[in-house]
Amino acid sequence: MLIPVIMSGGAGTRLWPVSRRAHPKPFMRLADNETLMEKTLDRAIEVTGSSVVLTVTSRDYYFLTRDEYKKSHKADISHEYILEPFGRNTAPAIALAALRLQSEYGGETKMLVMPADHLITDQEAFKLAVKAAESIADDGQLVTFGIQPTHAETGFGYLLHGEPLKQDNSYKLAAFVEKPDRETAEKYLESGKYRWNSGMFLFRVNDILQALASHAPDVYNSALEVWSAIDPESELTELPVEEFSRCPSISIDYAVMEEAENCAMVSGDFGWSDIGSWKAIRELYESDATGNRIRGKGIMIDSTDCFVQSDEGRVVAAIGVHNLVIIDTGDAVLVSDTEHAQEVKQVVSQLNLQDHETAIFHKTVHRPWGSFTVLEDASDCKVKRLVVKPGQILSLQRHQRRSEHWTVVDGVAKVRVGDKEFLLKANQSTYIPVNTMHRLENPGEKDVQLIEVQTGDYFGEDDIERFEDVYGRS
Amino acid sequence: MLIPVIMSGGAGTRLWPVSRRAHPKPFMRLADNETLMEKTLDRAIEVTGSSVVLTVTSRDYYFLTRDEYKKSHKADISHEYILEPFGRNTAPAIALAALRLQSEYGGETKMLVMPADHLITDQEAFKLAVKAAESIADDGQLVTFGIQPTHAETGFGYLLHGEPLKQDNSYKLAAFVEKPDRETAEKYLESGKYRWNSGMFLFRVNDILQALASHAPDVYNSALEVWSAIDPESELTELPVEEFSRCPSISIDYAVMEEAENCAMVSGDFGWSDIGSWKAIRELYESDATGNRIRGKGIMIDSTDCFVQSDEGRVVAAIGVHNLVIIDTGDAVLVSDTEHAQEVKQVVSQLNLQDHETAIFHKTVHRPWGSFTVLEDASDCKVKRLVVKPGQILSLQRHQRRSEHWTVVDGVAKVRVGDKEFLLKANQSTYIPVNTMHRLENPGEKDVQLIEVQTGDYFGEDDIERFEDVYGRS
Repeated sequence: MLIPVIMSGGAGTRLWPVSRRAHPKPFMRLADNETLMEKTLDRAIEVTGSSVVLTVTSRDYYFLTRDEYKKSHKADISHEYILEPFGRNTAPAIALAALRLQSEYGGETKMLVMPADHLITDQEAFKLAVKAAESIADDGQLVTFGIQPTHAETGFGYLLHGEPLKQDNSYKLAAFVEKPDRETAEKYLESGKYRWNSGMFLFRVNDILQALASHAPDVYNSALEVWSAIDPESELTELPVEEFSRCPSISIDYAVMEEAENCAMVSGDFGWSDIGSWKAIRELYESDATGNRIRGKGIMIDSTDCFVQSDEGRVVAAIGVHNLVIIDTGDAVLVSDTEHAQEVKQVVSQLNLQDHETAIFHKTVHRPWGSFTVLEDASDCKVKRLVVKPGQILSLQRHQRRSEHWTVVDGVAKVRVGDKEFLLKANQSTYIPVNTMHRLENPGEKDVQLIEVQTGDYFGEDDIERFEDVYGRS
Repeated sequence: MLIPVIMSGGAGTRLWPVSRRAHPKPFMRLADNETLMEKTLDRAIEVTGSSVVLTVTSRDYYFLTRDEYKKSHKADISHEYILEPFGRNTAPAIALAALRLQSEYGGETKMLVMPADHLITDQEAFKLAVKAAESIADDGQLVTFGIQPTHAETGFGYLLHGEPLKQDNSYKLAAFVEKPDRETAEKYLESGKYRWNSGMFLFRVNDILQALASHAPDVYNSALEVWSAIDPESELTELPVEEFSRCPSISIDYAVMEEAENCAMVSGDFGWSDIGSWKAIRELYESDATGNRIRGKGIMIDSTDCFVQSDEGRVVAAIGVHNLVIIDTGDAVLVSDTEHAQEVKQVVSQLNLQDHETAIFHKTVHRPWGSFTVLEDASDCKVKRLVVKPGQILSLQRHQRRSEHWTVVDGVAKVRVGDKEFLLKANQSTYIPVNTMHRLENPGEKDVQLIEVQTGDYFGEDDIERFEDVYGRS
């Protein structure tokens, strides 16, 4: 039995301004309008044939992840989750995934660990690599996936292959090496013996737990403590904050793979990319005769080899510029030389230092019940579009400093204002005076689209008193 | 008597996306938050001492111009206007201004012709130049203002000076030459005998009319015909479409100045700029230690000598780029190499070809009664913020395909819906069903701020049936 374990999360700094902490890379929409998350789920099911998928992610991304999974073509999949209150790198996450699978499906179960934000374009080749890895794992090996390097990349770790194994393209792993400097990376490339470490793994649950116990007993023991504090029967495992905070923050590479003797590598060339920068995103688009790649409305004058992405209908015009990445979102613009695009992390750091919300949030903010988009944020009013998904209900709440005027644009909302409850249809509106209890619900089958005009003197998200909330936020 | 004639208009292409056809350069706000129009008016009054200002502009800009003038520090000025239905270049405009001044103040009146969109930083020096020019004009000369060139500019015409006159820095004009190629411009610069043609003039009304009659009789005669078709008593001269269309479209330079014998030049160095490109705007800002100039929220990483202007609160981040102009407005972004910034005209041409509204309109559109800003323009609804100025009233109107929900955010509106008329205060809202007559008025002393949510299936500006309109639009 082979179960995919999808590891999702990340700081969302490398692809700012599209990817942000509140909406990181796995949720970013690519050229074909699918997200990396959707693609990863489809791939996970396709290559393993499993009817169960275990996802390890931040609890902040639970509802967003569930929404993405619903879009997948693969029905009848049983989704299990481990939700982290904060990140602790990959070793504790893999340890807890292994403990969960051991308890549920037994220690002989194999797990395929896949980051949620990688792209693989040749799924058939990947499937063959997974088959080979499964067979190697049956011999008690911890299997890594190595990617044939195409250039002297300094942003990845490398895998040195040892003796060939009987499976296709498979080797003992001779060494697990850290991100090299440029000179070393070039030597690795020339030697032909090194592969990029893709960050994907395949092993038996018992084998990885044994390796953790041997090589990283602090990770193993703290994970056991976390595990003993939770209900193993629940489909949704929320990790307890206190116990989980005692897990060391360490990657599986350092904790286990660099130390263990029983490591193997399947070498593959299946169109893998970690989509780690805007340069990598650019490669996903066809260029025109001048080398420009344009998504959205771009006007290029005397400009070559640029990548423009504008998703909010805004016009981007470029004149006399070359090899730039120009990314326009509703509230931010990035203009970067393509070769410097990875420095966008510094932009996010600066925004964080200044406590600027574009470091974290988009104009559209996702909530368990749907989403809202800020259309106007002024001193005299705030205007939002709310989308409430079918069957969802916002918290019963009130505000001290603002009144709200709601106009339904599409769908039928069930509204409570004070003691009254009534239906509000498209082209109907209502008024919620300051300090009045109210609640918004979508009892129908289609999204409710609603424009909210807030009037008053303060419009912060902290002026919400929640009294009842089905999502546990009251 | 010296009366300033302010010539305003322009296609708004050279400073796109901030300047657009519906809101061209004179109305653009500079570093000190004043517009060129405001500055021009103040300068006109200051250097002439006149209590009358004549403005020649497009009728499309009349209300906008009046709003700008109201902001001026100069009170008690009598404003007269000549409104063009379309542009016919400068010769017909100057001819009609001269005819109007002749009829009103007599042929000995002098006129100082000033484009509305130039900047002059040394007003004292300019005042001295105007004094000299006035004295020369008294001798029957047509006076131009020449600017000491600082570089071999190919975007301006040049003035070749002849014999010195008795006034300071004053010469007979030896030749009036067209925009040169680079090589010629460099020769002009080296020779020291050429000045840039600033496009400002000072002459007696009778002298310019006589010169027009001699050297451009078609302009002169067609202007006379236009003049005979209008009421000379009105403060607001609206040029009749049919007669004005028969005026040839030609500049005063070609029509008169290149031909006339009685031309002089006052040479000046008074910090003049025609603000003809983003490069010129950039020079109005102080640069930081890395050569960057930033207006709004800019984050610069490994970037030098860039100019960033972001006026809508959006973040602009630049990485590894140099000597770029990055201009962000609510609905468009320009990224241009500084030396190529004048090619922005090509962007506007392309947008015009595609009938794209960012070529012409801003998110905020000015109307005689105030302005509106589109906050959301989607298939299911349109949301606008309306600002109605004190004492103003929108047309009595109705829509076939949309209903409107109004929420007043500030001020007190007088509203008519169907047969009812009532006041709507801040935090009150009302509903205008499809096909219902309605009207919005601001009877108060402060602006009315109102959020309008339109619902229906079509939201174009052409779905307005106007029944009564104080601005003549019904």
